Parts: sequence; structure tokens; C-alpha cells
Amino acid sequence: MIKNEKITAREQDFAKWYTDIITQAHLAHYTDVKGCLVVEPYAYAIWENIQKELDSQFKATGHENLYMPMLIPEGLLNKEKEHIEGFAPEVAWVTRGGKDELEEKLCVRPTSETLFCDYYSQIVKSYRDLPKLYNQWCSVMRWEKATRPYLRTREFLWQEGHTVHASASEAEEETMQMLNIYKNFYENFLAIPVLVGRKTEKEKFAGAEYTLTCEAMMYDGVSLQAGTSHYFGQKFSKPFDMKFLNKDNQWEYCYQTSWGVSQRSIAGIIMVHGDNNGLVLPPKVAPTQVIIVPIKNDENVLKLANEYLQKLQGAGIRAKLDDGDKSAGFKFAEYEMKGIPVRIEIGPRDLQENKIVIARRDTNEKMQESKEIDIAQYVKDLMEKIHQNMFDRAKKRNDEKTYVCKNLDEVKNQLKKGTGYFKTMWCGDPACEAKMKELGGLKSRCIPFEEHQQHLSDTCVCCGKKAKEMIVWGNQY
Amino acid sequence: MIKNEKITAREQDFAKWYTDIITQAHLAHYTDVKGCLVVEPYAYAIWENIQKELDSQFKATGHENLYMPMLIPEGLLNKEKEHIEGFAPEVAWVTRGGKDELEEKLCVRPTSETLFCDYYSQIVKSYRDLPKLYNQWCSVMRWEKATRPYLRTREFLWQEGHTVHASASEAEEETMQMLNIYKNFYENFLAIPVLVGRKTEKEKFAGAEYTLTCEAMMYDGVSLQAGTSHYFGQKFSKPFDMKFLNKDNQWEYCYQTSWGVSQRSIAGIIMVHGDNNGLVLPPKVAPTQVIIVPIKNDENVLKLANEYLQKLQGAGIRAKLDDGDKSAGFKFAEYEMKGIPVRIEIGPRDLQENKIVIARRDTNEKMQESKEIDIAQYVKDLMEKIHQNMFDRAKKRNDEKTYVCKNLDEVKNQLKKGTGYFKTMWCGDPACEAKMKELGGLKSRCIPFEEHQQHLSDTCVCCGKKAKEMIVWGNQY
Repeated sequence: MIKNEKITAREQDFAKWYTDIITQAHLAHYTDVKGCLVVEPYAYAIWENIQKELDSQFKATGHENLYMPMLIPEGLLNKEKEHIEGFAPEVAWVTRGGKDELEEKLCVRPTSETLFCDYYSQIVKSYRDLPKLYNQWCSVMRWEKATRPYLRTREFLWQEGHTVHASASEAEEETMQMLNIYKNFYENFLAIPVLVGRKTEKEKFAGAEYTLTCEAMMYDGVSLQAGTSHYFGQKFSKPFDMKFLNKDNQWEYCYQTSWGVSQRSIAGIIMVHGDNNGLVLPPKVAPTQVIIVPIKNDENVLKLANEYLQKLQGAGIRAKLDDGDKSAGFKFAEYEMKGIPVRIEIGPRDLQENKIVIARRDTNEKMQESKEIDIAQYVKDLMEKIHQNMFDRAKKRNDEKTYVCKNLDEVKNQLKKGTGYFKTMWCGDPACEAKMKELGGLKSRCIPFEEHQQHLSDTCVCCGKKAKEMIVWGNQY
Repeated sequence: MIKNEKITAREQDFAKWYTDIITQAHLAHYTDVKGCLVVEPYAYAIWENIQKELDSQFKATGHENLYMPMLIPEGLLNKEKEHIEGFAPEVAWVTRGGKDELEEKLCVRPTSETLFCDYYSQIVKSYRDLPKLYNQWCSVMRWEKATRPYLRTREFLWQEGHTVHASASEAEEETMQMLNIYKNFYENFLAIPVLVGRKTEKEKFAGAEYTLTCEAMMYDGVSLQAGTSHYFGQKFSKPFDMKFLNKDNQWEYCYQTSWGVSQRSIAGIIMVHGDNNGLVLPPKVAPTQVIIVPIKNDENVLKLANEYLQKLQGAGIRAKLDDGDKSAGFKFAEYEMKGIPVRIEIGPRDLQENKIVIARRDTNEKMQESKEIDIAQYVKDLMEKIHQNMFDRAKKRNDEKTYVCKNLDEVKNQLKKGTGYFKTMWCGDPACEAKMKELGGLKSRCIPFEEHQQHLSDTCVCCGKKAKEMIVWGNQY
């Protein structure tokens, strides 16, 4: 396999490799406003597939979509203290409308908790009105200093679910349900294995009781927070006066959740699956799943190509035929760059022997097959294999880059060799958390749930005092 | 038919009737920011169906979606002179990011021509790169003084298509194609008859060569500009330096179009079809097409109700069953308010005679039918009838409220009796256009295309000089 010359090798400079793919696969285009990108059609088509998948899961679990305004008055944003402290340093402010200075400045939503709370406080009156299970698809804005396409941008696309319930237990179940939907989405749709658990106090969402998270590991061992689900309890309902009459006819504050996945998931796809020839798309999310390339546009070749196209499309497979006048080699490189999972090559010489060639993007293998195969079934089976292989490969890498460490020396030694997940015991003290960050930029990824807890040693990796639980650390994007 | 008491009669106060429906059918909720509304779940579900329908038409004609940033630097907005003059008075400005004053202020997009032009100027180099057929679904912001839900809001949802072509004729064909897609969408999906034609110079889009429009007439005779398609020619490509190498290897400025439909279409649905009991939704756009209401929750009733539900859903009909504990009368009023096209009532007494009742929302008719009917086929046929009846009824009203006038006295006399479309001859002079506005707030709706031109008289309705063409005037929302 000859490496594509337009992109830097990922072993050589991973950051450069990443931006090369963004540019060469036409995923994003920079604009004059720092951190605000054009999400180009190919990336947007991936995002549409992500939306379709998640949205159907949300609706199947009883959620409805709505749309909140993009502007939040300063006074409303300030209502929950931890929340404003978390977000105030990084919001963009509208101060003029038309030719007038505004009396109260308005921020472009960094997230919409405050708007949802304000709305819920007005429409919820009784336990009969509960639960409210709403979500919105929108863009949000955070005035970041350092930006990178799809990883950290000032404006980004996401979904934010906000639900309100009549009991803590119901809200907690919702929080866990949404985490599981995210985990299932990453693993079964994007072929990205995720680590799930609870964030530490320091890393939880500003204003939440606790935050559950899906963490993904990139090719270089660095982590990506891929989706979060927050339990708010009554932390927002009190300042926002969101009360309902419960079954005992008593006023009670509502119980709340919020949860979100953003276009960072696209960064995850690139950095988990991509290789030195470009993107490698998991079949379920690929805008084009199969590309048919005639090696030469002669009559028999084109006839078979069109037959295949119809059969594939008829079976609901997103297939395309490229009979354009560019060379087959040029097309191969182009579709490899775009990460199309399956390529069917039809050449006159192969056809004489009743053969065709099928190439897998995930392994770059080429298989010669009879032209009489049931092409739709073949491709369906192959796409399942590709999905499984991509998942297994990523999982194997995650396992290989997961390091059990009992003390700081072990952590330091491993960090010299490379990063990944650092599985250790922890006493629970934020001071130790701070020390891990100082040591090598390590942040807690999550505290795995009880069923995944292991007893690695008796003492905290950092201070040597009695350990409370197992925790996973990692560098992060 | 007893009138719903929660809404003002539309004959009594149309404006109040409109906002009553918005509130009572839970379509929008006001926020603390004037003109920025919560698009509530029921309205958003209507919007999702509108999106799905239009998006499939866009994709079937080769368009792709992308996403542009919401912020436009002042310098970029200023590049096309007419455009900035049209939009500058009504944009919201971001002047602070985090704790810093911005060096250049950024406006929240009122529309994205300038961003698309900037992008195209960088990615289009040769005729081989053309056409580019892109669209985006987003929200835009215009700092309006007077606002009304879905009609004129500061922030609103819409789609904006922006295409660029290698020839004027191709771009003009695109402009017309998109107008026809809009016309078809309004008439065949929303059951709203539209008047199509060309806007006058005064009423065209700021920066366009010309604007084609779909105009809809509301119940009260007032017009709504329901969708527009603009031909830009080279008016943006010159200031933005959007050039391509043509087939003769010469640099040429690109030819452009843009076109949009917004959530005003929801206002159109309300004001064309609604009645004194609430919304009346055209079946194709209705989030719930059929509601099944058991008159009493006894075993046989519920058994049949569930059978129907499965049959309807199995046939792809959006059906729901309400077996909640509220009274049947309460439910009827509720689903009438929500405009659900078909209601199936199943009662124990009817069942003894093997009968059920089916009610149409558009006419409020109730039909008694055998319980053995093929329910899915029956409902499909009925929904087609409902669509056609709603379209015909609106068309008839439009025709009745279309007034041919030969001089200003005729216009004035009719205006005293009520507004509608005023079909007249016109000399083409903007001074006469200004006079019509002065006279009774009449604005030109459009100059119908040649095939719909009629020779009503020889002279302009206003100045009495030689007429150039037929034009339609109207009051507008």
C-alpha cells in the first residue's frame, strides 16, 4: 500500500496528520472568525447520519425536540452560581441591536440550561405535567482561546437534552439511560469503544450533582470526552423556582437532567479510525457506503456497474457509481481519502474471467470474487465484518494502552513511553487530582461504575494514603 | 359545532385569534428576550416535517447541506453595497468575547450570502468545480422593532440555499427550479395555493438582480411572502472576487442564486387553514394524522382501538391512541385545537351495532362507518380528500378576494370592504408603487409570469399613463 502523499504520516506528527485529513477530505474550511468553521458538505452528511441515529433513539425513549432562542439575558445566565462561574469567562456577548446599545447584554448560548429552566418553571405546575423530556439540535458558542477543527471550536453543533422529573430516582434513571444510549451509539454505530463512569467533583459539569461520561481513546492514546449525561437533582430547580404540586398536594422542587453529544464525535471518528491514506469511516455513518469504480468505461463494464448500483441501492445501501473521466488510480486515492468502506472495481480483463474486485477500506485488502455473487448480501455481510473489525481493532489498542499503575514512579515511567488510560487507585482527595495534572497533564477521565471497579492496591497512586476507589486518568483533547 | 371558548373568534379579532391559537395549541412560548421564542415541541414537530419534505426535494435535485458560522465580521458584511444597506439597520452585534472587547465587531447572521461568497471565492477555481449546490438549515437574526410569533421574530429558523454556476442561464434555471419546488411544497404538501411571479425592483432582495416569490393569502385577505428565490447574476461575485476559469480558459465571474423558506410557513398554515376551534393541519404535515379516542375504556373498545392503531401505524400513518382518563369531550376539544386531521371515536354503544365514528377536522363532519372497514385504506383516502378540500377551500377564498381594479377609486372602494389581492395594470414607475403604499398600505406582491399576464386595461391603475404589465398588490404581514 502506497501512502497518500498529501497527508503527513500519523506516526510522524499526529496533529499535522489530523489537520491534513480535515483539509484533504474536505471536512472543514477556515473562516475569518477564529474557531468558527464551515462544516463542509461531506462532514455535514456524516453529521446528518449521526443526528438521524441519535434522534431516533431519543424519540424511541419518549423525547421530543424543540428549539430555544440562541440569546440568553445576562440576568438569567447568572441565576445558578456554579454554572455562571463555569461559563462566564467563555461567552460571546451581543451588546448592540440595530443601531441601539442594549440595556441588558445578551450572551450567545454556551449551553441552554438556564433557558430550559426558565421555560420549565413556567409550564410545569403539577406532577401530572411531568416528566418533560425535551431535546434540541442547535449550535452553541464558547469563546475558546486555542481552537482546533471539530475538537475545540468557538461555535459547534450539538444536541442538548434537558428533562425534568417528579422524583430523584426517575431523573437518575434518565441520566443513566441517556449514557447507555450514547455508549450504544459510539460502539454500535461509530465502532468506537468507550469507557463509561462518573466524573470527579472537579471534572463534573458546572452546576450538576454529578456527571456520567463516555470517554473514547484516540489512536495516539489521548482521550476525548465523547458524550456526557448530567444529574442536576434540584440544583437548578431551586434558583429557578421550578416547583410542582406532588401527589400529596405539596410543593416540591423538580429533579432534572441534561445530556449532550457534539460534532466532536466527528473528531473521534477521524482520530480513532483514520490511517495514512485518509479517513476510514465506520459503515453505518458513511454518507457513501460503497463506491463502484469502472477500471475502464467499456460497455460490459458499465452495464454490470449499473446493475450492481441498482441492486445495492434497492437493498437500502448508500452506493454510488463513479464513471467520470479521471483515472482509476486517482479515484482510488480520492475514495480512500474519503474513507468509503467498500470499493467495487470492475475491469474488462477481470470480466473476461467473470471476476470483479472488492476492496475493504479498513484493511485495504482486495478480494477477487465471481461477478455472479449476490452483491447486496455480500456487501451487507462485508460491512458488518468491517464494523466489527474496526471496533475490535480500536478496543485492542485501548487495552494495550491501558496501564495499571500503583505509584507515581510507574505513572512517570509510562508517560515517557506514551500516554493512554492510567488505571490506578485513588483516595478521593482533589489535591491528588491536582498533582496528577501537574505531573503530566493527566486529568481524571472517570471513576468506573461499581461493576467495573477492581481492587488494584490498598493505597492511592498519588499520596499513598488509603484508597477509596479505582479511577482512570488520561491526557485529553 | 360549539366554538372553543379559549380562543377569540377569528371574525371578531383576527390578530387575537392568531395569538390565542399560538398559545392554546402550544406552538410558541415567549421569553425575556423580545422577538425570541421557544418553538415548542408541537410546532417543532411540524417544522421537522417541513424540513424532511423540503430537504428530500433539495437532495433529489442535487443539493447538499453544509453549515456556515453564525458570526459575520463587519468588514465581510460590508462588501456588497445594496446588501449591507438592506440589512445593517437590523442586525445584532457581538462586541465582546469572554472578557475582551473584540477588535472587529461580528454580526449574528441575518442571512449568509456574504459567508457563502467568501467560501466560494476560495474553493471555486475552474468550470470543473461548478455548479456548487449548497443549502443550510439554521437560525438567523434580524433586530425587528415590532414582532409577532412565527410572522416576524428576531430569531427564526429557515433554510437558505446558495448556488453558484458557470453560466447565467444555468443560474436562472436554478432560480426558477427552486421557485417551483416551493410552489409545489406549498400547494401539494401544505394545501396552501400560492401566487408566483417576480418582485418589483423596490421589493426584491437587497443585492439581487431579481427575486421570484411565492405569495400566500391568509384568511383575512392579507398576504404572506411565503418563499423567495433570488437570481444574483454577478452582483455578489464581483465584489467578492468569485472567479472561475471557463472552458475557453478565460477568467469569468460566477453566476449565483439564493433561495429560502422559513418558519413563517407555520404562520401560513395557521392563518390559511385554522378555524374557531383551533389549528387545522394539512394531513401531510401533521405530526399526528389520526387520533383514536375510546369513548369509554371497556375491553372491546380498547381491543378494537389497539387493532386500528397497529393497522394504521403498519401502513405508515402517524396514528396515536389516547386511552387516558380525561373525558372524551375534553379530548375532542384538545385534538381539535391541535388540528389533528382525522379522529376515530370508538364507543361501546356504537360497537354493539358494529359501528364506529370517524370525524374530519377540516369540515367537522362525523361519519358513522362499519367497524369492519379497511381502516388504513379508508384513512389514506380520507386524508387525500381532506388535503384536496383544504386546498380548494383556500383557493376559492383567494379567488373571491382577488379584485380587478382599473383605477384608484376602485381600489379605495374595495379597501373599505376588505383587503385581498388587487390585480391591476401598472406603468412600472416606482412613484406609483409608493402611492399605492400611501393609499392603503398596499405593496406589490408580484408581477405574474408571462403565461399568467392578462390585459386588464391600457392604463396604469395609479397614474393613468400607458401600462406596461399586470401586477398584483396586497397588504402584507
